[in-house]
Amino acid sequence: MLYENLALNERGHLTIAGYDASKLVAQFGTPLFLVDEAVIRRQCRTYLTAMQESFRQGSFPLYASKALSCKAIYRLMAEEGIGVDVSSAGELYTARAAGFPMERIYFHGNNKTDADIRFGIECGVGCFICDSEDELLVVDRQAQDLGTCQKIILRLTPGIDPHTHEKINTGRIDSKFGAAIETGQAEKLVQLALRLSHVELLGFHCHIGSQIFDHKPFCDAAILMVDFIAEMSSHYGYKTKVLDLGGGMAVRYAEGDPVIDYGKNIRHIGILIREACAKAGVEEPIVLMEPGRSIVAAAGITLYTVGSIKKIPGFKNYVSVDGGMTDNPRYTLYGSAYTVLAADNMNANLDFCCTVAGRCCESGDLIQENVLLPEMHRGDLLAVLTTGAYNYSMASNYNRVPRPPLVFLGENGPWTAVRRETLDDMIKLDL
Amino acid sequence: MLYENLALNERGHLTIAGYDASKLVAQFGTPLFLVDEAVIRRQCRTYLTAMQESFRQGSFPLYASKALSCKAIYRLMAEEGIGVDVSSAGELYTARAAGFPMERIYFHGNNKTDADIRFGIECGVGCFICDSEDELLVVDRQAQDLGTCQKIILRLTPGIDPHTHEKINTGRIDSKFGAAIETGQAEKLVQLALRLSHVELLGFHCHIGSQIFDHKPFCDAAILMVDFIAEMSSHYGYKTKVLDLGGGMAVRYAEGDPVIDYGKNIRHIGILIREACAKAGVEEPIVLMEPGRSIVAAAGITLYTVGSIKKIPGFKNYVSVDGGMTDNPRYTLYGSAYTVLAADNMNANLDFCCTVAGRCCESGDLIQENVLLPEMHRGDLLAVLTTGAYNYSMASNYNRVPRPPLVFLGENGPWTAVRRETLDDMIKLDL
Repeated sequence: MLYENLALNERGHLTIAGYDASKLVAQFGTPLFLVDEAVIRRQCRTYLTAMQESFRQGSFPLYASKALSCKAIYRLMAEEGIGVDVSSAGELYTARAAGFPMERIYFHGNNKTDADIRFGIECGVGCFICDSEDELLVVDRQAQDLGTCQKIILRLTPGIDPHTHEKINTGRIDSKFGAAIETGQAEKLVQLALRLSHVELLGFHCHIGSQIFDHKPFCDAAILMVDFIAEMSSHYGYKTKVLDLGGGMAVRYAEGDPVIDYGKNIRHIGILIREACAKAGVEEPIVLMEPGRSIVAAAGITLYTVGSIKKIPGFKNYVSVDGGMTDNPRYTLYGSAYTVLAADNMNANLDFCCTVAGRCCESGDLIQENVLLPEMHRGDLLAVLTTGAYNYSMASNYNRVPRPPLVFLGENGPWTAVRRETLDDMIKLDL
Repeated sequence: MLYENLALNERGHLTIAGYDASKLVAQFGTPLFLVDEAVIRRQCRTYLTAMQESFRQGSFPLYASKALSCKAIYRLMAEEGIGVDVSSAGELYTARAAGFPMERIYFHGNNKTDADIRFGIECGVGCFICDSEDELLVVDRQAQDLGTCQKIILRLTPGIDPHTHEKINTGRIDSKFGAAIETGQAEKLVQLALRLSHVELLGFHCHIGSQIFDHKPFCDAAILMVDFIAEMSSHYGYKTKVLDLGGGMAVRYAEGDPVIDYGKNIRHIGILIREACAKAGVEEPIVLMEPGRSIVAAAGITLYTVGSIKKIPGFKNYVSVDGGMTDNPRYTLYGSAYTVLAADNMNANLDFCCTVAGRCCESGDLIQENVLLPEMHRGDLLAVLTTGAYNYSMASNYNRVPRPPLVFLGENGPWTAVRRETLDDMIKLDL
């Protein structure tokens, strides 16, 4: 199995964290998102421990909540004692509603509105990741207006290409995010931040991309960032307190993906930063990292009921389920790989090759192609693994399909963290 | 201008149906979806009139409501006296809540659940477009159970490739939809339908794809369908009452797209069907068509406020707006073309080439690349044209960004058809 929390019971059913998939479906229906709390907690602890061991004291991970944002997740992160990054007022609002400590919130976004910025300062968020000159000026003005000084970090683009999918590669200099080091625009932003009196510049942020399996691109980025830190020290006597290396560590979607040792990667980066700082003659900063996907993706599984099986002789077989791009748009968007299992028939021979399709009136609504399954029938269950990140968070009501619930599998049994949408919810905004 | 309802007033502002874009923004905020009712009504009448003139008496269009589903749209379609196709229980529920006559509802979908089917029959929908043997059997069983006989149409794949974008090409034989004529599976489905006693087979449906500018692919499909109708007549003495040619007529997204004469296209198809039926010796069926995009797309415009402008020397310019893939995922999904205008500065020189980006924490969150605009500043307004179809309907809450409102521009002024989501709406499902 792809993950340790998956197994197979005597009925030939898939179990997740010890729970029989069919029993969960009988209780909660399909489509159903399951989230294994223990997996999330373990990943939080892996990051926190490795970062405490590898980086300067005070270093810690920020959960990038765009991967999966709901009140339950923020409560969990609060319990694990890590920070959180939010990318909008909506995520911030959710974190606050969950009672997450505001000083451990880092507020991201390439285009925060004036209202977003005011809301963030009023909430008392720990830090803004400022993305542009315009934003910096608004943060300073609003902080003054509210009689405070706002801690900020500047988002920079170091120009690293981690050779991942173009759409999720954000560290290149050609990006809607941040200011480029190479063009001198990053330094100009530092000059401005140091001049403003209602912002306190804590340091610098970069994010080089997503689904990075290796520590190498992070090390490359860290070297460029330490060089920049040294330059800012030499040009302005500015002492960088915080270096935020962003997110991007990969997760395994398929058996062919390499196994990742997150702790080892972090220790590599730690050694590199220590050496680079020593060489550049600057003090080591506190390091932040922003894992999102690698905290929650593997904790999530989606269960579907099969509704239609089509065998087109000489062409292809299609198995359609009762969800699709509405709850998992990642195949449609990126052609992402997913592992699909016959959750209630795990012992059968996998001799049926098919395309697993969704229920939307759209040809592109597919979940995965060339999947090996046993012979399928209406009513069978399918499990799609690794759906904890960017599935529920990107879900839509296309075709007015209600979003599934998020059921957390915790120590005391399964519980609904986000309820299923109803047909009545579909018209609640209609006047 | 791309459309006749757009103009430019003395303040250099874009007007839509005579309304100043800036004034609408002052009243309703951004991001803002506008829908020009008159454009929708005109398109409904174009289809209805051309179909009545070109096809057998009783022919009419079905608005494919997956393009834009909300109570207001169904009320409008009821007023225009046309039919509606729904692709889910959610769309059906919305149409019913709007008081749309159930007998004019055609229920689509490649994977209707047992609950969907029961709900459809209980609502009294006019017709099911049955997509598979499994569905046919469930419809028959449920109709029996509810003491009724359900009218149905069978969805077939005639194997036409209209050479459009792969993701929206649904007429090919390799499709999750329908049953292929070529493989004999369509005929098997007819045999089954004729055997069942609680379904009444009205005829056949095909849908060959989307964004088709020419009448030729529709004519090709119609010939294949008439051939099939003749075969079913000869094999089983079955007299086809209804031929549903699906949707797919294109709309103009950019100045370079050809102007489409919908009425002329329909008249071409009408002549062809008449000839083909005469040649095949079968009676002309009533013809249905399912325009969705071509009814609502051009009626819609999205207005955004610019938040950040980035000029990366030697690379690119980015203009970020307060919406993006959350309200318009079509560029991210398909690389779709859109026309972008500086809504409050229409007289300025277009000497600034840029990428218009959204506000999501995702590099791929772009609305359009290589757009020519005047010099941009935080607070400027941008209009994105042709967003009436598949924008609001595919919108998500990614990054917990609330969905914009839909403001209809009617005879008696602008009015909110779908209200703006609030931050509180973002957590309403969270427990």
